[in-house]
Amino acid sequence: MEYTVSNRMSTIKGSAIREIFKYAADPEVISLAGGNPAPELFPAEALAQIANEMLTKQPTLSLQYGVTEGYTPLREAIKERLKRVENIGKENDDVLVLSGGQQGLDLSTKLLVNEGDTVIVEEPSFIGALNAFRAYGANLAGVPMDSDGMNIEALEKVIAENKNVKVIYTIPTFQNPMGTTMSIEKHKALYDVAKKNGIIIIEDNPYGELTFDGTKMPTIKSMDEDGIVIYCGSFSKILAPGLRIGFMCADKAITAKVTVAKQVTDVHTPMITQLMAYEFLKRYDIDGLIVKMRENYAHKCKTMLDAMEKYFPKGITYTRPGGGLFIWCDLGNGIDTLELSKKGIEQKVVYVPGNTFMVDMNKPCSALRLNYSTMSDERIVEGIKRLGKIFTDAVEAAK
Amino acid sequence: MEYTVSNRMSTIKGSAIREIFKYAADPEVISLAGGNPAPELFPAEALAQIANEMLTKQPTLSLQYGVTEGYTPLREAIKERLKRVENIGKENDDVLVLSGGQQGLDLSTKLLVNEGDTVIVEEPSFIGALNAFRAYGANLAGVPMDSDGMNIEALEKVIAENKNVKVIYTIPTFQNPMGTTMSIEKHKALYDVAKKNGIIIIEDNPYGELTFDGTKMPTIKSMDEDGIVIYCGSFSKILAPGLRIGFMCADKAITAKVTVAKQVTDVHTPMITQLMAYEFLKRYDIDGLIVKMRENYAHKCKTMLDAMEKYFPKGITYTRPGGGLFIWCDLGNGIDTLELSKKGIEQKVVYVPGNTFMVDMNKPCSALRLNYSTMSDERIVEGIKRLGKIFTDAVEAAK
Repeated sequence: MEYTVSNRMSTIKGSAIREIFKYAADPEVISLAGGNPAPELFPAEALAQIANEMLTKQPTLSLQYGVTEGYTPLREAIKERLKRVENIGKENDDVLVLSGGQQGLDLSTKLLVNEGDTVIVEEPSFIGALNAFRAYGANLAGVPMDSDGMNIEALEKVIAENKNVKVIYTIPTFQNPMGTTMSIEKHKALYDVAKKNGIIIIEDNPYGELTFDGTKMPTIKSMDEDGIVIYCGSFSKILAPGLRIGFMCADKAITAKVTVAKQVTDVHTPMITQLMAYEFLKRYDIDGLIVKMRENYAHKCKTMLDAMEKYFPKGITYTRPGGGLFIWCDLGNGIDTLELSKKGIEQKVVYVPGNTFMVDMNKPCSALRLNYSTMSDERIVEGIKRLGKIFTDAVEAAK
Repeated sequence: MEYTVSNRMSTIKGSAIREIFKYAADPEVISLAGGNPAPELFPAEALAQIANEMLTKQPTLSLQYGVTEGYTPLREAIKERLKRVENIGKENDDVLVLSGGQQGLDLSTKLLVNEGDTVIVEEPSFIGALNAFRAYGANLAGVPMDSDGMNIEALEKVIAENKNVKVIYTIPTFQNPMGTTMSIEKHKALYDVAKKNGIIIIEDNPYGELTFDGTKMPTIKSMDEDGIVIYCGSFSKILAPGLRIGFMCADKAITAKVTVAKQVTDVHTPMITQLMAYEFLKRYDIDGLIVKMRENYAHKCKTMLDAMEKYFPKGITYTRPGGGLFIWCDLGNGIDTLELSKKGIEQKVVYVPGNTFMVDMNKPCSALRLNYSTMSDERIVEGIKRLGKIFTDAVEAAK
């Protein structure tokens, strides 16, 4: 039988990135393509002990159905931590536990965006977000990025030119894929533009705590007096991604409806993973763990940047992130990094071509994303060395 | 700021059932409203030991990102079990691990149903399914139930009368909320009607193994030569619902696209809960556990039916399930069981009014759903006794 796919899902193409990740699964391949946190920092022993204890002493709580909003003590702990670390949480805000940060994007879109409505995105932006929006038939409109975040003039132009703009999606701090951070001035400008135009901001902040020198950027949500910011957070990058625990902080009018949307999507997030996150927050020093992650990633980022300085061709540009997991590198010269990735695969090194992060994925792109959090120092250097050769040849050939 | 909710989500009303469940949370209240499995049967010790061991010995596997399709050994184990227990699995079928059975309904709809397309449902049917369909703006068309499943003549009429029928949703065995089971003849007839009209069947089978006398009904999927049946299963009722592990078996052309839909929804199902399900299947006797559940529910169902026989007014009708979790009771006499549920709340006993399970929830309904799996024998009898008084008064008053 022939299947007719819904209009909304027909907008997502099977992407080249899945092909690349197939190669990345080969242990011989040096993958600079992923966004996996360093597994050596997972507090596995603590989580093993918690899981064992909860399942033994609280079997019904751990294994029976839970409420859609999330385990109440975990919601309270997240609220408390958001207030303390990010100064987030107004009178009218509420927190929901979600099945990973991705679910915050999925449910917000489900709730707010009709097919054909416009969602404004940074360009480049996180592929998982772009596809979450596409999967509801949203019209994506990209705003070019300056080194300090969205170009605000371009943003206003995009709003004027598009109908039914419902959402602006941003990753202000240590952006994926660029690694850049939005300035405080732009936080304010973006907020004002959204408010003036009656547009909801989805602020995605999975990397904000992974700051190399300890400087914390304020969030847009912390200045949200009008209840227009949906803040999406996650434990994936500060505890462990396999738990799939994310959260949302937003105005109660929004969280109440997102709860209904979540109920019909997955009923609730698993209890044992919520209990693991909650008890870890209660008993252990997550702030101390995050400090270790910062040091680890700062070191690995420097290792990669040093190797890039040494092996990459001169005249190309790349970002120097203050935190997070990614470096964005532009080879320029009309080079198609998707095409070039095949040479990487031959040399057993993979990255994500820049076109993946664009609204129009079919347009060739000279930029690419590099990840430094997953591989060892040695493999980072070896990977960059191999890419250096490929990129040097490509730049030479393009001249 | 005013929020504009998407058309799709505006079709779901905050339902009376949520109000009822608020009362059910009070430990003094006898809840015959839920669908919770008996917690005393959760294999908590085994799962505690598995979780502890996996997190200790396989920390990266347990805590790192996993693949969207699900943990491969778990997919294989589910495939093997589906073949052995249900005779399901053709050459072209594949299995995906999902975040609970509900996600199978959500993602199937996301993939197949445009806003305004018709989804045909049994009437009454599972509220979680109805709302999953509503949340994509589906046009719901109900088919009345006979004691042996959907009325096939009515089904054909509904197909003829509705445009763009994409899906027929059915719970053939121990239906929620009716507790009734579709005959083998109707399996065949339903399949033929769907095939002839190019409609996909979503077969939801969370209760099929909970057969009181051990008789296993065949599934529609087991006769699916054309790849038109999406089979949704779950470990919620045969292991533990808090794990949120479900699965789907469908033609590879469908599972490939559902994988893309899942990736943008929650990336993947948590690793530790998948490992718990897999290792439990591998090391323990889940078939033996299910036998215990069958015995437990058969006993509780009989306890409830005996009490109903004793305390309920004569002349009303109710189903006598061969398995599953629910009894459907019709008071007739134009009684509105939603209105009547308030008297139950006063007497600290709650059920789910029948209107909840209908396409048009606003129409008064004289039927209601009773659950026997959660409460103790004593509370079941006491609850039915209290309801008996309320129902007897109502039937008397209505005469």
